Amino acid sequence: MTVRVELGDRGYDVHVGVGVRSRVGPVTADTTRAQRALVVTQQPVADHWLDDVVASIDDAGLDTATLVIPDGEAHKDVATLAMVWEECARRQLRRRDVIVALGGGVVGDLAGFAAATYNRGIDVVQVPSTLLAMVDSSIGGKTGIDLPGGKNLVGAIHQPTAVVADTDMLATLPARVLREGFGEVVKHALLADRKMFKRLVAAGPELVAPGRDLSTLVMANAAIKAAVVSEDEREHGRRAHLNLGHTYAHVLEVLTGLGSWWHGEAVAVGLLVSLALGEELGHHGRDLRATTTRLLADIGLPTTAPVLDRDALFEVMARDKKSDGRIRWVVLDRIGTPTLITPDPAAIEAAIARVEDPNCSWPPTDAGTETGSPATELPTDDTPERSHA
Amino acid sequence: MTVRVELGDRGYDVHVGVGVRSRVGPVTADTTRAQRALVVTQQPVADHWLDDVVASIDDAGLDTATLVIPDGEAHKDVATLAMVWEECARRQLRRRDVIVALGGGVVGDLAGFAAATYNRGIDVVQVPSTLLAMVDSSIGGKTGIDLPGGKNLVGAIHQPTAVVADTDMLATLPARVLREGFGEVVKHALLADRKMFKRLVAAGPELVAPGRDLSTLVMANAAIKAAVVSEDEREHGRRAHLNLGHTYAHVLEVLTGLGSWWHGEAVAVGLLVSLALGEELGHHGRDLRATTTRLLADIGLPTTAPVLDRDALFEVMARDKKSDGRIRWVVLDRIGTPTLITPDPAAIEAAIARVEDPNCSWPPTDAGTETGSPATELPTDDTPERSHA
Repeated sequence: MTVRVELGDRGYDVHVGVGVRSRVGPVTADTTRAQRALVVTQQPVADHWLDDVVASIDDAGLDTATLVIPDGEAHKDVATLAMVWEECARRQLRRRDVIVALGGGVVGDLAGFAAATYNRGIDVVQVPSTLLAMVDSSIGGKTGIDLPGGKNLVGAIHQPTAVVADTDMLATLPARVLREGFGEVVKHALLADRKMFKRLVAAGPELVAPGRDLSTLVMANAAIKAAVVSEDEREHGRRAHLNLGHTYAHVLEVLTGLGSWWHGEAVAVGLLVSLALGEELGHHGRDLRATTTRLLADIGLPTTAPVLDRDALFEVMARDKKSDGRIRWVVLDRIGTPTLITPDPAAIEAAIARVEDPNCSWPPTDAGTETGSPATELPTDDTPERSHA
Repeated sequence: MTVRVELGDRGYDVHVGVGVRSRVGPVTADTTRAQRALVVTQQPVADHWLDDVVASIDDAGLDTATLVIPDGEAHKDVATLAMVWEECARRQLRRRDVIVALGGGVVGDLAGFAAATYNRGIDVVQVPSTLLAMVDSSIGGKTGIDLPGGKNLVGAIHQPTAVVADTDMLATLPARVLREGFGEVVKHALLADRKMFKRLVAAGPELVAPGRDLSTLVMANAAIKAAVVSEDEREHGRRAHLNLGHTYAHVLEVLTGLGSWWHGEAVAVGLLVSLALGEELGHHGRDLRATTTRLLADIGLPTTAPVLDRDALFEVMARDKKSDGRIRWVVLDRIGTPTLITPDPAAIEAAIARVEDPNCSWPPTDAGTETGSPATELPTDDTPERSHA
């Protein structure tokens, strides 16, 4: 299955399916003029999938080198970026050559940014290994690194020449990593696809059952992301809707310390805050948040947030305000109909209060090790607004 | 005086003249939506000119911060880049804010690249302080840093919103720095302006006399560079002509150790190699090289090269070959009419041999400290080809 990101002569295909890692080589050969490829990856992805990917690129006739960068979100930094740049130079990659980014969001963002800037820009093929990367971060060309002062403070828009999402790779993910990706999946469903939302709700905990084939779901999500990017590459309009849930998610990530809440988890709770805001302002009724809360709980995602200091919270949001000084939120009028608003602080505060819970037990202390099982031990819909009523 | 770089909605003015540093603030305010400016500079430029530039920006109503990065070509590196990025974050620069790059090529390239990538790209105003930066590197948007493996291996095309070249700054340059800039000036004259070439030859050593007003010359050179960039931003066609003299210059810089020959000096000798190649292949007669050699000697630039190992020389050139595998040289049919050719190795070798001299005494051991005096002690036209005849 493929979907096209329509961006004129910078357009590209997203390939999704079981076993499509074997197409990385042919796709790289077809979409670039590369003679050499540097595969940038991380553990544990390398252990599972690097040999297959390298074999595919070798078979396509390219000279292939590999670089395994240190694991973890903390290494999306300048030091690791320099490591990739210097490996490109050591391997004598030239302007026509290619970086293949095999991994999750960290690898995709960092290796993509290295490609955007090495030799003033060489090609990159994205081979996402996590659900979050497959449905979101590998598509659309956002690349970059973090600074000590904040996430994604340095970067470039650099579209890949292709995305190859092999859903076999989802089976080897730690459970917490798989679940995290559903934060963006639920977001896409709310933004653009009422039928997908209903199917997600109907499937419930089965979504994260071991062995489940997620190809069709990944494809549908990639298609949503691809359509938005095709229409609005630089986030002047519709792409801003993809920030549904992200205004609060960013605050939560910053105030709890980067890495404590994972991005897709913060987005899950952020979606609930946006839905609470939509309720508060009369955009839609209360059912939507209740249903979404149950869905997130079924998947094993958090549904409540810790109580955050109000001054700190508004300070972080103010830092993110757009150049016209307003803080924008995406809310829904109904599923599939997002809208950008600039609510007053009282409404924002009321919405956040509905999702906060002083007993919020996220992040889990025991998660992230087991594989593929639904997290029935995680907090379910415990009507958090009660504690602030 | 201003000249326009015509690049549609990314076009910008180059302001040239005595005292135009006072316009940095108004120009920054007019061409950006910045509320904050970070002025990135180096010593000794900061001692002479930083106060004036900061005062101008302050007066224009911007919130101004400064960062003095370590001096020298060696600091066009990842560590200094990270320093600029982190200062942007510490000062909370946002997407509409601006970096002002006050200095020579190192500051312009590095601060320009930081601006190209911080927050996925913020504005930059270039305030070149050296002749080389005024006539060449500040115009056209090439930005980047060096890696241990090579110069300019990382970078981006990122056009400034304005260039402000105050020719007062030339008076405080060390002599070797001023002379170096004439390598690119002579190149421009050969490429595009027979009358300028004649005026340069007529002025001779007076070009680098203390107190000489170089505004008109800088303006004419900025106009040549601006015209080429306007026509061909990404070096698909005419911009490649600006590489006149650079094929050999790059080899010389690499093989003698980066920093030993300065860029403009290597270009001076590279021009002579290109002219020798033009002779060799019958594009023009021998007078052109003889006249250019005298001009360069009058300015105090080198006119001979050390004898380089042939294998190493061709290996470095091969590394630079274009994606079609050919090594391109720019030669002249006559002044003002450059042409791209792919000569055979024997012709290249013969041309280089004509400029090599086993007694070549460059780089100077005593230069770079005195200010503004013509370097009559430096090698003059000593018919280097004799030693290889």
